[in-house]
Amino acid sequence: MSGNPASEQPVTDRFADDPAFAVHEGGKLSVSAVRSIDSIADLALTYTPGVARVSSAIAAEPELAHRFTWAPRVVAVVSDGTAVLGLGDIGPAAALPVMEGKACLFSEFAGLSSVPIVLSTTDVDEIVATVKAIAPSFGGINLEDISAPRCFEIEDRLRAQLDIPVMHDDQHGTAIVVLAALRNAAKVVGRELGDLRVVVSGAGAAGVACTKILLEAGVGDISVADSQGILHAGREVSGTKQWLVENTNTQGFAGSMTSALEGADVYLGVSGGSVPESAIASMAENCIVFSLANPIPEVDPEMAARYAAVVATGRSDLANQINNVLAFPGFFRGAIDAGATSITEEMKLAAATAIADVVGDDLRPDYIVPSPLDRRVATAVAEAVAACAREQGVTR
Amino acid sequence: MSGNPASEQPVTDRFADDPAFAVHEGGKLSVSAVRSIDSIADLALTYTPGVARVSSAIAAEPELAHRFTWAPRVVAVVSDGTAVLGLGDIGPAAALPVMEGKACLFSEFAGLSSVPIVLSTTDVDEIVATVKAIAPSFGGINLEDISAPRCFEIEDRLRAQLDIPVMHDDQHGTAIVVLAALRNAAKVVGRELGDLRVVVSGAGAAGVACTKILLEAGVGDISVADSQGILHAGREVSGTKQWLVENTNTQGFAGSMTSALEGADVYLGVSGGSVPESAIASMAENCIVFSLANPIPEVDPEMAARYAAVVATGRSDLANQINNVLAFPGFFRGAIDAGATSITEEMKLAAATAIADVVGDDLRPDYIVPSPLDRRVATAVAEAVAACAREQGVTR
Repeated sequence: MSGNPASEQPVTDRFADDPAFAVHEGGKLSVSAVRSIDSIADLALTYTPGVARVSSAIAAEPELAHRFTWAPRVVAVVSDGTAVLGLGDIGPAAALPVMEGKACLFSEFAGLSSVPIVLSTTDVDEIVATVKAIAPSFGGINLEDISAPRCFEIEDRLRAQLDIPVMHDDQHGTAIVVLAALRNAAKVVGRELGDLRVVVSGAGAAGVACTKILLEAGVGDISVADSQGILHAGREVSGTKQWLVENTNTQGFAGSMTSALEGADVYLGVSGGSVPESAIASMAENCIVFSLANPIPEVDPEMAARYAAVVATGRSDLANQINNVLAFPGFFRGAIDAGATSITEEMKLAAATAIADVVGDDLRPDYIVPSPLDRRVATAVAEAVAACAREQGVTR
Repeated sequence: MSGNPASEQPVTDRFADDPAFAVHEGGKLSVSAVRSIDSIADLALTYTPGVARVSSAIAAEPELAHRFTWAPRVVAVVSDGTAVLGLGDIGPAAALPVMEGKACLFSEFAGLSSVPIVLSTTDVDEIVATVKAIAPSFGGINLEDISAPRCFEIEDRLRAQLDIPVMHDDQHGTAIVVLAALRNAAKVVGRELGDLRVVVSGAGAAGVACTKILLEAGVGDISVADSQGILHAGREVSGTKQWLVENTNTQGFAGSMTSALEGADVYLGVSGGSVPESAIASMAENCIVFSLANPIPEVDPEMAARYAAVVATGRSDLANQINNVLAFPGFFRGAIDAGATSITEEMKLAAATAIADVVGDDLRPDYIVPSPLDRRVATAVAEAVAACAREQGVTR
């Protein structure tokens, strides 16, 4: 048997200078049998005829599938490739390395199997039908890098139709980690969440979910801006943006994002673009700047540090990296361990608190979230999410 | 992090007496990262920001997906659970252990990753749409345990619409191994394939595919029976059965399967049910009996041995096991190694010859096919299939 054909590529090629390509050579994942097959007896148990007895038992008593198949412990990482990282609509093949990366993280940090499923369709009805059709193969659905506003409808419909956890990670994974970070940043500056005035730049998947979880966590005042400026009652919008109009901006800001920043306590950037220094300089004393666009934050981190008490970004080379790897592996692990049939808002809040609590007494302005490599995080998140699911009775 | 929750089940339970259940506890498969993630640098290459460079490169040059993603080397094992082993329509959850078993064999025998995809739909259009939608995630589609005649249409449509190998294993995997076995059985009795008169009992997925491949290999005369008897011009049938009427039964048999067996050289049972001793006794001298129903062969193997020169079954506890594990792992491995964009009849014939050739000079009446554990088989099949695909130019 020949080895992996891709590994036979010459190393002195045009990709040799970038180690990211070496790490992707031949793909990043592997599926293997848990138990080896070394004898006819092994074969007769793993495959025919022994497997028929297991299949018969499940056919007679469907709940046995939870015990005797891998499905309850496998997460599908599903994307149509329409909103990949900062790259936009690059399609399923180009999105696949990101989904493989997520699957690597599920395995490494939570011991969960997961499978990247990239789709040749971007049609909402077709995506919902496809995920529903393959759902018996999986114990959870991690939606990923699907553009707004389609991501909202797809997640809502799948949540309603499936009895396994479904979560769009760009929304809720990001939101959970942002809340964890803001809890600790508020502690650093000696403030309560309820007293903070927050400006969210971006009304896409992450912006909407962050706004919702911050409201649920008790943040007093949030204004959300899209590319046209702050969302307010005078704007003609629909869908999720209409929801934002109705549930945010109690002070009635009506201008640009930067105008709302004047005197604000928190800037949360999930939009890309660039914020001028004057806008950051106009924020309240001891303000907090979370600028998550990657690889180029909306606010230059060095500049931000001149005005803000706490600065966080999405970058791995700077302090306070808001990385949703802090949330999703442990989150799905906890949901699956508990046999959760859905994901509740309380489970997300519990996950955020668990992440924040890992920092504990080591809390500092440049250490408000744990390192993405901190192995304690997934365990803590899994335990908190599982306990919450059991407490709420959303388990099978 | 807690371990696999299923493994914490007490061992002294109602499934303790059957080792097949122990082998299935918690499922049989695992997905893991090829390279571990031990540092921030590893994380930044496997996931953001490094992965963005790989995704960008693929977006600009789609063929790079073949090198830098796992998809080209992953097979989806797809089933709707409608025709599982001898169990029939038991649904997706109960079918899953069989699909996991196949994935174990892909891994063990061919070093290929594969993913079981069981479907919540049995509608032909929906199955085709679903597989098409998820196809960018995979390098090959192994259809499995889908009932006839739907399996024929589903395979035909997917083959036409996808540019990766698609194969319904119950048809072609079985057919390849049956042809390999028949090549060697004919050698044992000193006959040419072209001189043999064959009776096939069963006009479902396996029966149709075996008939087609035997005709392609040059078997002279084949009569096919369904539950109503031999298929002949006087019967009102449609679809695949009409094709059989037009392409088989040159001698015009019109009665029962057993009546056609009188004087026949080969009985091939892929139907279940039971064949009386008198019918086997009426076959030609030095006849060949392949009785593949599992776990109870149509012809009692001991009885068959009193009349036939060569007997083969589907059972692992008897000699000459016709097990499609001899075909599918190496077959997909070869197709994938060659970058095949489709599967041709010649590739199947090449696989059958490769399997038969592994037996070589050790050929005996009770050794016409290699052991399912013989590691030489997948290698030989992969090489033959890859060479054939390249020769025919059906590669990317």
